[in-house]
Amino acid sequence: MLNNRHGGDIYQNIVSDDFSANINPFGMSDRVKEVLRRSVDGWNCYPDPECRELVQKLSVFHQVPAAAICCGNGAADLIYRLVQITQPARALVLAPAFSEYEQALLSAGCEVEYFYLSADRDFVPDWDGLLKRLSPRLDLLFFCNPNNPTGIPTVKEKMRELAQACQDNDILLAVDECFCDFLDVPRHYSLLSDTGRYPRLLVLKAFTKTYAMAALRLGYGISMDIDLIKRLRLSGQPWSVSLPAQQAGAAALEEDSYMARTIRLIAGQRELLKQELMRLGYRVYDSQANYIFFRDLGQESGGRLWELLKAKGILIRDCSNYRGLTGGYYRIAVKTAPENRHLIEALKDIHKTGDTI
Amino acid sequence: MLNNRHGGDIYQNIVSDDFSANINPFGMSDRVKEVLRRSVDGWNCYPDPECRELVQKLSVFHQVPAAAICCGNGAADLIYRLVQITQPARALVLAPAFSEYEQALLSAGCEVEYFYLSADRDFVPDWDGLLKRLSPRLDLLFFCNPNNPTGIPTVKEKMRELAQACQDNDILLAVDECFCDFLDVPRHYSLLSDTGRYPRLLVLKAFTKTYAMAALRLGYGISMDIDLIKRLRLSGQPWSVSLPAQQAGAAALEEDSYMARTIRLIAGQRELLKQELMRLGYRVYDSQANYIFFRDLGQESGGRLWELLKAKGILIRDCSNYRGLTGGYYRIAVKTAPENRHLIEALKDIHKTGDTI
Repeated sequence: MLNNRHGGDIYQNIVSDDFSANINPFGMSDRVKEVLRRSVDGWNCYPDPECRELVQKLSVFHQVPAAAICCGNGAADLIYRLVQITQPARALVLAPAFSEYEQALLSAGCEVEYFYLSADRDFVPDWDGLLKRLSPRLDLLFFCNPNNPTGIPTVKEKMRELAQACQDNDILLAVDECFCDFLDVPRHYSLLSDTGRYPRLLVLKAFTKTYAMAALRLGYGISMDIDLIKRLRLSGQPWSVSLPAQQAGAAALEEDSYMARTIRLIAGQRELLKQELMRLGYRVYDSQANYIFFRDLGQESGGRLWELLKAKGILIRDCSNYRGLTGGYYRIAVKTAPENRHLIEALKDIHKTGDTI
Repeated sequence: MLNNRHGGDIYQNIVSDDFSANINPFGMSDRVKEVLRRSVDGWNCYPDPECRELVQKLSVFHQVPAAAICCGNGAADLIYRLVQITQPARALVLAPAFSEYEQALLSAGCEVEYFYLSADRDFVPDWDGLLKRLSPRLDLLFFCNPNNPTGIPTVKEKMRELAQACQDNDILLAVDECFCDFLDVPRHYSLLSDTGRYPRLLVLKAFTKTYAMAALRLGYGISMDIDLIKRLRLSGQPWSVSLPAQQAGAAALEEDSYMARTIRLIAGQRELLKQELMRLGYRVYDSQANYIFFRDLGQESGGRLWELLKAKGILIRDCSNYRGLTGGYYRIAVKTAPENRHLIEALKDIHKTGDTI
């Protein structure tokens, strides 16, 4: 079923607390909300197909030329458009990873190869193994940094090795940095400042999670392959990015202190949550992102942790439908302190009572 | 250039009056605006990928099963997704017509054939000629009713002939009824009540123009080919329709009196505008929609009507980039009485003074 593919499905699962989608727990900033409320009267007009104002602001924000930027109806829209215009014959994706890379590739008839992350290595990529898999027979590599669902980031030095290896093998490298802004020091991981060195590199970013505007859908891609960006812009319908998304995005880029507060909150709460989860006996992996990946060995929950939490009004992400994972793996978002406490209390309850539903 | 492909580009052309986009001149209804303003706080959540509430309301509104409905990021999104999933080898489009049919088909490598509407027939389709063009070698036919840019509608009896001929020749018929709600009596033209009779029929509709929410992007398709609808829903990213669009759409469907007022306004103002344009010497075609298609023979404007009006702060649609048209053809939206008077005064001015810029 379409609706079970991802987290955030609060429409089928009516809950009081959604830990299944990894969105900035502060919600949209008050200023962005105010911009939206003030803009409603003008929403009878078509959006700017070229997103000129937003692209200009992104160009200043990231210090890249406007011609290197393409906006989309969420990063997921750009993933599909990228695959449509490049029509790769063979592509490599990691597993587990965000499933839309694979979905987009398969929908275009691409042959998909998988580089599996193993539990034996705590889902840290075997870097030499990955580099060795790269060869000119591959057309495209999707790499998510930090990875989803694991939250494990790859440092910039390694990412540069990967970008260079893709460059050498003429592989288009699409690095999905949608969660990078939630890391403690994003610039230690991001390749955004290196697009000029690797023309075969495309970095994908999203406002969706960072600025908590998932409802509005807004993502963008940056590459110094200006021709690729031009083709991306011309792909699909002209008005893929709504005007509310463009307006909210342009306003959000000015929210420096909101983002600083966000990183502080996430960093502290993530470590607290990890400790509590470990104390409860879960196998917790080394996420540095705004979500935590863990394994429930099932002693207390009988393998039914998702159901038991849902019965308490809490939705978490059951990761068993990720390629490369089995049952027992879960992902939770890092939220505000009271929300996180609520989750931990619910888990403690389950452990105490051996709840069944 | 992307931005010159369509009307409504008020971002490149700063004007006081935009007659180039055919949007409900009343703007969004107050109730829909209020729903949007009240919803802003919840826009941190992902939209429902299945648009369940909206689909349910559309199902009641159109009296078709929910399984027959697929929503999209504007009707244009559905045009591209339809072509992606059906991969037609050969398709037929009318010319002139909305150019995104052709763009979507060409982007998927489809061979496109054209059925030209001729000025000699005042752009009324040669119906027998069209029916004769249909054969099993065609996979897909896009038909816009009323046509864009001409505004000329085709009555339901003829549309049924077309649907039957497509059925007989196993051609998927996509009827774009995005402007149908602006006709005086939409049900005399629409095939929406006939989807059950023609499983090879898909009707495309949009909230964009009807309810003046172009900024939000919302369209939908209805077909009793339930498998086609299922494949359309699964095509592309899961979250193509934003939450604001879903919320505004669900609210707009209750605006009966707003739509009744709209049809009255359009019907009256369209005829007034047509008379004034004819009085000024333009060749005016028989639009029944919320826009008027006319030809400027150039005696007064020197073929520069678009520039002369733009110098007066008025944007109209220069139709010279439509396949099958040459310079001198224009399209204007029917707006409110004061706006329409402003346009006519500006045209009278041009005629009086022989303005040059």
